[in-house]
Amino acid sequence: MAVSLVVLTQPGDARTHRELSVAAGTSILKAAHEGGVDITATCGGRGRCTSCRVKFVAGTIPPPTIMDEIQLGDDLVREGYRLSCQCTVTEPITVQVAPPLEEHAFQILGAGPGVGGLGVRIDAGIAKELVKVSLPREEHHQTSDLEQLAAAVGVAPESVGLSVLGGLPQALRDDPGGVTVTTFTPGSAGTGRTVISVERGDTTAMKFGLAIDVGTTSVVTTLIELESGEQLGSVSSLNPQAVFGGDLMSRIAFAQFNPANLRKLTTRIVGLLNQHVAEVCRASGVLAQWIYKAVVVGNTGMHHLLLGIDPSHVGLAPYAPVMRHPLVIAARQLPLKIAPEARVCLLPLVAGFVGADAVAVALATRLADSPTLRIAVDIGTNGEVLLGSRDRLLACSAPAGPALEGAQIRHGMRGAQGAIDRVRVDDDVHVHTIGETAAPGICGSGLIDLIAGLLDAGVVDWTGLIGVEARDRLPPALRDRVAMRGEERVFVLLRAGEAGARGEIVLTQDDVRQVQLAKGAIASGIAMLLHVSGVALDRIEELMLAGGFGNYLSIPSAIRIGLIPALPVSRVRYVGNAASLGAQLCLLSEAERARAETIAGRIEHVSLAAHPDFEQIFVDAMNFPRG
Amino acid sequence: MAVSLVVLTQPGDARTHRELSVAAGTSILKAAHEGGVDITATCGGRGRCTSCRVKFVAGTIPPPTIMDEIQLGDDLVREGYRLSCQCTVTEPITVQVAPPLEEHAFQILGAGPGVGGLGVRIDAGIAKELVKVSLPREEHHQTSDLEQLAAAVGVAPESVGLSVLGGLPQALRDDPGGVTVTTFTPGSAGTGRTVISVERGDTTAMKFGLAIDVGTTSVVTTLIELESGEQLGSVSSLNPQAVFGGDLMSRIAFAQFNPANLRKLTTRIVGLLNQHVAEVCRASGVLAQWIYKAVVVGNTGMHHLLLGIDPSHVGLAPYAPVMRHPLVIAARQLPLKIAPEARVCLLPLVAGFVGADAVAVALATRLADSPTLRIAVDIGTNGEVLLGSRDRLLACSAPAGPALEGAQIRHGMRGAQGAIDRVRVDDDVHVHTIGETAAPGICGSGLIDLIAGLLDAGVVDWTGLIGVEARDRLPPALRDRVAMRGEERVFVLLRAGEAGARGEIVLTQDDVRQVQLAKGAIASGIAMLLHVSGVALDRIEELMLAGGFGNYLSIPSAIRIGLIPALPVSRVRYVGNAASLGAQLCLLSEAERARAETIAGRIEHVSLAAHPDFEQIFVDAMNFPRG
Repeated sequence: MAVSLVVLTQPGDARTHRELSVAAGTSILKAAHEGGVDITATCGGRGRCTSCRVKFVAGTIPPPTIMDEIQLGDDLVREGYRLSCQCTVTEPITVQVAPPLEEHAFQILGAGPGVGGLGVRIDAGIAKELVKVSLPREEHHQTSDLEQLAAAVGVAPESVGLSVLGGLPQALRDDPGGVTVTTFTPGSAGTGRTVISVERGDTTAMKFGLAIDVGTTSVVTTLIELESGEQLGSVSSLNPQAVFGGDLMSRIAFAQFNPANLRKLTTRIVGLLNQHVAEVCRASGVLAQWIYKAVVVGNTGMHHLLLGIDPSHVGLAPYAPVMRHPLVIAARQLPLKIAPEARVCLLPLVAGFVGADAVAVALATRLADSPTLRIAVDIGTNGEVLLGSRDRLLACSAPAGPALEGAQIRHGMRGAQGAIDRVRVDDDVHVHTIGETAAPGICGSGLIDLIAGLLDAGVVDWTGLIGVEARDRLPPALRDRVAMRGEERVFVLLRAGEAGARGEIVLTQDDVRQVQLAKGAIASGIAMLLHVSGVALDRIEELMLAGGFGNYLSIPSAIRIGLIPALPVSRVRYVGNAASLGAQLCLLSEAERARAETIAGRIEHVSLAAHPDFEQIFVDAMNFPRG
Repeated sequence: MAVSLVVLTQPGDARTHRELSVAAGTSILKAAHEGGVDITATCGGRGRCTSCRVKFVAGTIPPPTIMDEIQLGDDLVREGYRLSCQCTVTEPITVQVAPPLEEHAFQILGAGPGVGGLGVRIDAGIAKELVKVSLPREEHHQTSDLEQLAAAVGVAPESVGLSVLGGLPQALRDDPGGVTVTTFTPGSAGTGRTVISVERGDTTAMKFGLAIDVGTTSVVTTLIELESGEQLGSVSSLNPQAVFGGDLMSRIAFAQFNPANLRKLTTRIVGLLNQHVAEVCRASGVLAQWIYKAVVVGNTGMHHLLLGIDPSHVGLAPYAPVMRHPLVIAARQLPLKIAPEARVCLLPLVAGFVGADAVAVALATRLADSPTLRIAVDIGTNGEVLLGSRDRLLACSAPAGPALEGAQIRHGMRGAQGAIDRVRVDDDVHVHTIGETAAPGICGSGLIDLIAGLLDAGVVDWTGLIGVEARDRLPPALRDRVAMRGEERVFVLLRAGEAGARGEIVLTQDDVRQVQLAKGAIASGIAMLLHVSGVALDRIEELMLAGGFGNYLSIPSAIRIGLIPALPVSRVRYVGNAASLGAQLCLLSEAERARAETIAGRIEHVSLAAHPDFEQIFVDAMNFPRG
């Protein structure tokens, strides 16, 4: 039986509604997705988060499930909120959706400072030349447009991409000045020089490329002039696959469900990249057809999903990728809407959870050339830790989850306008917000500051417990912020009205546990690599923090909560979005791209879960340092 | 202003009508095409034929244009017929369309007898093997599904097509017996062995290929088992591009008009090939995914249109093709709905009007190996003539047009049920029809018999004139059939009722001229190649007639009208659809496909129109032999 489901996507605005006809018994989440309405489901629709919550506007509100009660709490349940993944449609209803992730305007780290500092000789492998082609003149000359072109360029006809031929006859005849031929010569041994574009007239000055970092949570696309290496523009967005699951495992589970889901994930990311192309081109006045090369980095899951490769078994032990070798494909194959025969280069992968992004980080941080031992930590939903020098290179995955990006935290949010990004704790708490506007929530760097401060103040103990019992020992202002709410321990960071907050902003006991899990993943990754390589911490010359998170993070706070080990602060350095920087290096230098392959071959993957000492290391890493 | 145009596509059946809203001033033909209604326009909508005629059913019948009068004649004009290409819509009208080409059920020569007789060693380059792949077992094993597969097969991971990876993880895990891996090893130097398919379980016995002959008028697809060479099925259709122009030049003109037209032509032919795949697969019980190789032959125009390459300049002097080299592409690129990575091989081209079909004919007839001089004539709308031996190989185009296929002939029709295919003339005329049913018209072989008979009887003289003035010298039965109809000389082949004919069937003076043009094109091609090579006719050991036409043609009649030169009948031989046979050879033998490339390189193209002696040769060839 079909039942009507009306979904409102803008709060209080009945005009933005969609009426769907739904088979009775379908969950609201599933029905909405099938009807093309995005409802964010960070946990993949498993009742583990609150992102898919809807509010009943019309129709009978069903009794709450246990998951509704746990995730939403009594207040929201009473107000008519339900998790759309838990709630089935049995009669005509109207629901209001929480604003989807995309509608948050928020700050994602862009492409970083560029490759200028690394002293790399620019040779993108892309050459453009103005060529005068002598057209076939006599009927008995047995030749073709293509053969004449190939002879003028000095390549074989077979090396000219088929889609170049479409406009070839007209281009050759339009401009007596000649045609501009673009070729690609790969740095590694391989296919030789290929013709990827023929344009009428002289366009030799127009030569651009893209560095693309496809993260689980955010996607950064940077447009670069290939002669000078200049960054012309950068655009970043949330990965639109997130509506089908905030972490990689949720997305893999979604893809496992059926092939249509896999196609949906692929279409989403390809669609976003094409939006990015349109945006950077519009902003910089570059025509998309002048983009001849793109380098894509991402973790193994993102890589497979971009190519439409079934990642189901990447999510199952022994987590083997489907493929690992570096790929060079034509843009039309994705399709990425740049020059159709533009070369899209995907860097090689190492393992199921150590992907091309880790290779790019290793390349950009020069870890593989270092005479001394260094560590690179790429913090993200699916982070990685690398340890090594020119002698040996180890890597492991550090699946921190989205907590450090503010997700799955009661009042968490991403680093957007108004987010609390810095917290100082003395006799009371003092907050700083991004843009210094009213605070709707707290982002990852604020969360780390807050917990570091609460540890120092004795509000939270080394096991992570919010010390309600011991609050009488605290200064009065702090004491008043520690409370029980029902069964739950909370620390009230802001009361309604404080610092312009519209409502109360609290840190719950569960929030602390989420941060412990996240920092524990990274800390145990670092500890495991030190353990496996038999290296003592004091032999580490430098620890580099990379990722979209690093630039807002207080290093002392990160050390205080044990996210990174207790090195002297002088040995810890932000390196920005190193994965994107690695992609830029490979974009601008074929020698660097060849090197990425060598590096990938050198990286030894350390599997955390399979190691006999992992459990002890992880349990230790979950706790906070005793201060 | 928009005007209503109702188009009836089935005679007298108002249910099969389409109502279109048309901008006033649009031609009926253009409006119908834009509205998705097929009206055949053999001449490309230039008022040169009658194929696009419509009959007015409702609305004011406009005054006839001069083209209406010339093409349709007074009777049809009076009955409300008009050429839809000449007639614009200015007020609401309803018209009845002549049945489109596709609705004729008609006999096209199939794929011929197969390659059995040529003693070719079968090696299609396609190998299937059952492979047991050891899956990644431990997390620290740094490998991937693909690397394990590639190692088991003995190829590099790079040689595995990307679209194979989609289903790879599941296939590897589904069947403990292993997976069946299909590889392609090209015969010529090139890319080495590539993996084109991985299937679960053991499917090694299933290995099929397609030989595809894309003619201007008809398209023949043959399904072949690649181990035995057995033909499992063959399907042939009219080329659906014909609604946009019966001959190549009309279609090129249509493509020149705008890029959307080019796409339309490409979509039509790709769509037809996919229908063919579905049909041969259904009839033979073969799954399309088991087809791993296809060889396509066609003239340069058909080749370019299939690939979506702009053929505009192929139609302009010096008629240079856009490309000529042999291509091997993935089926998904067309897309042809067989195994996505199946190899689609297009044979090389020689010149703008000597295409891969001529190369295939040269290969199949073994012309290039012959110790003695032989001629091969491929009769078709865009025919070719080849002359040569192992020492030298010449070719020219012979654009006969569609007259010999019954098109652009007053009562002409294709070789379908009921067509008059044989005619004998003594004191009177005697006809034979295909299927011995009532005669709706005459096909090419009947036309040639008829004119040959009329030449012998003295009804038609050597210049082609129907001798109305001299009819008194004829036997009475013949005399009564020679008449003037208005200004027009006609020979009445059948009166209404004779041999069950529903209406009169006549041969007009213009019909004779059309046949003269067609046979003149072929005869002058033969004469020119003899002239250029300085070879006397009696040195020709054999003349081979190829094409969809040959099997119904009377060789003595063909010699009588001068379609082919006056060789002893014993030296003339039918060889069937040699182009399709050449495609089959290349499908079943990579050595033969490599050979096709050598042959293409050897063929010297003789340009007829550019030769100073062409005019005299053509004028001579237009006349009939004096008997």
